[in-house]
Amino acid sequence: MDKLEMHHTLMAAKARKGLSWESLGEMTGHSPVWIASACYGMNSAPPETARKIADALELGDDVARALEAFPTKTWDGAIPQDPLIYRLYEIVGVYGPTLKDVIQEKFGDGIMSAIDFEMEVEREENPKGDRVVVTMSGKFLPYKGW
Amino acid sequence: MDKLEMHHTLMAAKARKGLSWESLGEMTGHSPVWIASACYGMNSAPPETARKIADALELGDDVARALEAFPTKTWDGAIPQDPLIYRLYEIVGVYGPTLKDVIQEKFGDGIMSAIDFEMEVEREENPKGDRVVVTMSGKFLPYKGW
Amino acid sequence: MDKLEMHHTLMAAKARKGLSWESLGEMTGHSPVWIASACYGMNSAPPETARKIADALELGDDVARALEAFPTKTWDGAIPQDPLIYRLYEIVGVYGPTLKDVIQEKFGDGIMSAIDFEMEVEREENPKGDRVVVTMSGKFLPYKGW
Amino acid sequence: MDKLEMHHTLMAAKARKGLSWESLGEMTGHSPVWIASACYGMNSAPPETARKIADALELGDDVARALEAFPTKTWDGAIPQDPLIYRLYEIVGVYGPTLKDVIQEKFGDGIMSAIDFEMEVEREENPKGDRVVVTMSGKFLPYKGW
Amino acid sequence: MDKLEMHHTLMAAKARKGLSWESLGEMTGHSPVWIASACYGMNSAPPETARKIADALELGDDVARALEAFPTKTWDGAIPQDPLIYRLYEIVGVYGPTLKDVIQEKFGDGIMSAIDFEMEVEREENPKGDRVVVTMSGKFLPYKGW
Amino acid sequence: MDKLEMHHTLMAAKARKGLSWESLGEMTGHSPVWIASACYGMNSAPPETARKIADALELGDDVARALEAFPTKTWDGAIPQDPLIYRLYEIVGVYGPTLKDVIQEKFGDGIMSAIDFEMEVEREENPKGDRVVVTMSGKFLPYKGW
Amino acid sequence: MDKLEMHHTLMAAKARKGLSWESLGEMTGHSPVWIASACYGMNSAPPETARKIADALELGDDVARALEAFPTKTWDGAIPQDPLIYRLYEIVGVYGPTLKDVIQEKFGDGIMSAIDFEMEVEREENPKGDRVVVTMSGKFLPYKGW
Amino acid sequence: MDKLEMHHTLMAAKARKGLSWESLGEMTGHSPVWIASACYGMNSAPPETARKIADALELGDDVARALEAFPTKTWDGAIPQDPLIYRLYEIVGVYGPTLKDVIQEKFGDGIMSAIDFEMEVEREENPKGDRVVVTMSGKFLPYKGW
Amino acid sequence: MDKLEMHHTLMAAKARKGLSWESLGEMTGHSPVWIASACYGMNSAPPETARKIADALELGDDVARALEAFPTKTWDGAIPQDPLIYRLYEIVGVYGPTLKDVIQEKFGDGIMSAIDFEMEVEREENPKGDRVVVTMSGKFLPYKGW
Amino acid sequence: MDKLEMHHTLMAAKARKGLSWESLGEMTGHSPVWIASACYGMNSAPPETARKIADALELGDDVARALEAFPTKTWDGAIPQDPLIYRLYEIVGVYGPTLKDVIQEKFGDGIMSAIDFEMEVEREENPKGDRVVVTMSGKFLPYKGW
Repeated sequence: MDKLEMHHTLMAAKARKGLSWESLGEMTGHSPVWIASACYGMNSAPPETARKIADALELGDDVARALEAFPTKTWDGAIPQDPLIYRLYEIVGVYGPTLKDVIQEKFGDGIMSAIDFEMEVEREENPKGDRVVVTMSGKFLPYKGW
Repeated sequence: MDKLEMHHTLMAAKARKGLSWESLGEMTGHSPVWIASACYGMNSAPPETARKIADALELGDDVARALEAFPTKTWDGAIPQDPLIYRLYEIVGVYGPTLKDVIQEKFGDGIMSAIDFEMEVEREENPKGDRVVVTMSGKFLPYKGW
Repeated sequence: MDKLEMHHTLMAAKARKGLSWESLGEMTGHSPVWIASACYGMNSAPPETARKIADALELGDDVARALEAFPTKTWDGAIPQDPLIYRLYEIVGVYGPTLKDVIQEKFGDGIMSAIDFEMEVEREENPKGDRVVVTMSGKFLPYKGW
Repeated sequence: MDKLEMHHTLMAAKARKGLSWESLGEMTGHSPVWIASACYGMNSAPPETARKIADALELGDDVARALEAFPTKTWDGAIPQDPLIYRLYEIVGVYGPTLKDVIQEKFGDGIMSAIDFEMEVEREENPKGDRVVVTMSGKFLPYKGW
Repeated sequence: MDKLEMHHTLMAAKARKGLSWESLGEMTGHSPVWIASACYGMNSAPPETARKIADALELGDDVARALEAFPTKTWDGAIPQDPLIYRLYEIVGVYGPTLKDVIQEKFGDGIMSAIDFEMEVEREENPKGDRVVVTMSGKFLPYKGW
Repeated sequence: MDKLEMHHTLMAAKARKGLSWESLGEMTGHSPVWIASACYGMNSAPPETARKIADALELGDDVARALEAFPTKTWDGAIPQDPLIYRLYEIVGVYGPTLKDVIQEKFGDGIMSAIDFEMEVEREENPKGDRVVVTMSGKFLPYKGW
Repeated sequence: MDKLEMHHTLMAAKARKGLSWESLGEMTGHSPVWIASACYGMNSAPPETARKIADALELGDDVARALEAFPTKTWDGAIPQDPLIYRLYEIVGVYGPTLKDVIQEKFGDGIMSAIDFEMEVEREENPKGDRVVVTMSGKFLPYKGW
Repeated sequence: MDKLEMHHTLMAAKARKGLSWESLGEMTGHSPVWIASACYGMNSAPPETARKIADALELGDDVARALEAFPTKTWDGAIPQDPLIYRLYEIVGVYGPTLKDVIQEKFGDGIMSAIDFEMEVEREENPKGDRVVVTMSGKFLPYKGW
Repeated sequence: MDKLEMHHTLMAAKARKGLSWESLGEMTGHSPVWIASACYGMNSAPPETARKIADALELGDDVARALEAFPTKTWDGAIPQDPLIYRLYEIVGVYGPTLKDVIQEKFGDGIMSAIDFEMEVEREENPKGDRVVVTMSGKFLPYKGW
Repeated sequence: MDKLEMHHTLMAAKARKGLSWESLGEMTGHSPVWIASACYGMNSAPPETARKIADALELGDDVARALEAFPTKTWDGAIPQDPLIYRLYEIVGVYGPTLKDVIQEKFGDGIMSAIDFEMEVEREENPKGDRVVVTMSGKFLPYKGW
């Protein structure tokens, strides 16, 4: 079972069981964002986590093994089209050089890792309209001469 | 004075005066990220803020007026190349559909605004290597039928 | 049933029943443009509306559920090719910077939302040849500093 | 004087004189959108209109002649980046096939002309936030066999 | 039956019956170019013409209905590769600005319509090698201010 | 003097002298389309023709020599944007495979040359609106095995 | 049978029979390069040649007819990736303008035809390593004014 | 002096002196194609050759040194537009896989080097029209396992 | 059996047998990198090696023959997306001109062959985190005039 | 002084002084590859190193300061054209998935860092032709769930 079939199997089972990413996160002791990314085929799950996800969704060993497999990460379209994802892309375009400058003012020459990396999504209540709060945390990796 | 010339003038003055985005943020009562984005020509500053930035950097009215101008936001390259900015793009590619699903689970069908939007950068100390923490907050905009 | 299969099912039923977007709009209390966009898989319908569409076209629950699903909006080709759609793209290319200037003269720095957004199409009789009148209405979203 | 130099000259004079597109429209008996598009170099003005624009902005014959010249219409970037213009592009992407279907239901096989075409922008007051209303009117051109 | 299946069905029947575009044009009172474009799925045929084409090729109602459907016109590859079609593209590239200037000298600012448009192909005998003569006729559409 | 400078010099002189492509064609015994293409830098003129063009526009030897030079033919943008030129591109897209089939029905396997090639533009009066008539004539080049 | 299926059928039969392009060329009185290009679906074979190829490979009439069909020539990827083919592309990139200048020095303004064209491949023994020798011969087509 | 300035200087001097690539080749004992490619900035000349070219064109040491410099080889446009160069590109597209198969039939798995490579251009007289003959010779490089 | 089917068959058998590239390399006397590249369909294996791989994985003759076939090397996406592969692409982008200069300083004008080429991957233990060591060795190919 | 001007200044001084990357590496205690990359503007040098480079080349403080600045890393062309650099790109294309599999077999799911990264170039003597040996060493970064 490849990652694509795994993803469709997981999504169908999740809908059937009426489970949320929130609850799958709690059952496995992981962030809902990370659990979702594993189920979208973008991260590999350790065996015990893969087992827990499959069990929670009453799915078999083939799904668990597919969750463990090391993924090849790809995405459709250099420039995303769905409005929610495009807005994130636009933020990178508009604020990319600004973020680079502000981060490097705080840390020196280097980057924020996208591998040693975590991300959370929260809902912030607000009388003018609730807000989506996305928090990213990545290890700073300094450039070093040699 | 257009936004590009304004940006180079501001960067040179900032270096000459030895000021940080942190301190410019404090002087103007704004976030360092937003102040930097205005100085990169990606946001327009209200007159009093433009005045304060120009004064802090001992620059003239033409710079203040350029800071007030409504920018046309553009960026080089559909796919960024600088490693720090590329990693942000990669995060959007790898986690975009995941974020869409997790956000819409919490909020229903809609998007996070990139206009009614704020962003902060923090340094988090960590014995395994300090971490860059980026927090984005955007108003949720629901889709509505008509 | 995914959005693509839903779309083909809906289009075939609509042709079979001889119904127009106009009449589907009236039956559901929605604009024909919005109803069509939901049936093209570009917007999610609330449950009662999804039910009404399915009933009007004598289709089952699977279609209604597919109409309710939150879509991932994508389109073929960065530059459209069909002449009707290309002309709209050309209008954005030719008049984009003009519209930006005229809108921002009236409203200040900000954008017209494409999410809190409505659109209608009317036929205007004209002795020199009838005219297509497209009206777009989107909430103005101002940029704010932080 | 080419269209680019003409545009910069006109914009500088417009700012110096403190004139709006609204007032330039009134002075010339044209829509503000069309006047702006001519000043952006995207449409050619008839001699008397060109003369009126140049006079209103106290500019010379070379500007008037440049306004009269037939433009070559081009734009930067197949996919626009400025958020205001991108939202228009996104609307074409998301609603393009829908508009095609709704227009052709009303008119038969054909297109809305982008040449025999007019467009207006209005501000609509709204307690939940004012709205941008864009109205396009283009002659319907039917396909004919031969 | 969609336009693609219709096209393959029509081409197979045309080969089986040994009919040419020339003869199909005569049978239907249309130009061979237009008849071919309808059978390639690029134009919609009026009911009686669709009926005649289907009858001439001994095909059923489903083909006739598919010929009547309003097509979405698309093509493969922004830059064509087949040498015959590429040469046409090259002519547009090499002579495009020249044609614009010569047409606008004769007609004023405007374009040649590609919708109210006809095209013929003739074989011209020539001792140095016969020539392909392509004649295009499109209504001139003037730009108008508003 | 390169082709670009030559082109601008020729266009300025043509405007100053109030000459049309029509009249330049007559003076030199060439088609207005071909004369214009040589002055746009897309074809090389034989010495006597180059001389006549330069004389008619009261320009010097450097312009005549530039007209004689063998051009490197290039154009901006794989997909043209100006509406007049785009319509020609659209015609190639929509009718390319149709033309290939109709031409090859008349001639066998081969192409229409874009090198041994001529093109004319005529204005055809028409009570419903005058028409642009473009006639292309290219030698048929058959494919041959070896 | 379309060209793709024809190609796969021919390649499988060629492997099964253990025939080389060299021998197929000899059997049909054609160059191995041209025979291979016809079997790759890039050229149409005259009926007797098509018959000979099919007979040599013990294939049926459908293959012979597919060999006779006029192909639509297309290729994958504007920039080829396979190293052997990329090197040819690189040669065009590196030496293109040089070849243009050297050819036009010998022939005047014009091009080498890719239609009235032949190509051979030879193996040249060489103590430092054998060499691939590719010879192209195309009719010179001069540009002519009109 | 960079390669671009060197190229323009060499071309101007070559025109002024009325020298051909043919004669420059003879003076230096090199092929006209290679000499031209060095003067187009696409190959580095050994010191004595650089000296001879500069002397033949009465140019200085800076030109000779620029001829010696190791070039960075680049070209404009992934797909060439000038018809002469495009035809070469088209040949690679149409015949690339054919050449790969014919070469590998003769040599085994490997490629023709574009580095250990030579190319000549000849004019072949022909009553039906003279022909351009291009001969390429590249060392065969076999793939080897390790 | 084509290279794609071969690859999937090999990967499934390798997982079933629990074999590593390391061990397959040892069994065949090849580098694990080269063996893997042959099994990914990017290199052709000599008959005895193909036989050994198929035997080790208990696969049949069709797999061995597919391993022997000369591959057409292609890859998805001009710019890779998977983070591991993208980092390699980034290294080429960031260090490409540097490597060119350093290599040509040591060797003169020429390139490192990608055909007469070998590559190894090692794990280097390191208290700060183990390191991936990739070693490439390619024959230097000098440019030569002719 | 920006990185581009710095690069040209450094290259001119290096040529004038007749220094190699090898010797600059020795003078500063760094690898020639890293020193070259800093002088190409792709890495920032610590103050003392910047000072040493400027001194070795008899250049001023502005160059030293430019060497210290944090670079924005960009490169021309998604696909490189110079043959030496293209071959590296080709290696990434051909061997990318192979390297991913071999590295992840040794290390588990993760990547080789391009930031905590070193690279060396060696010349290996070889009777069949000397070889370029490129060694890359990057820290392995494992993916971790959260």
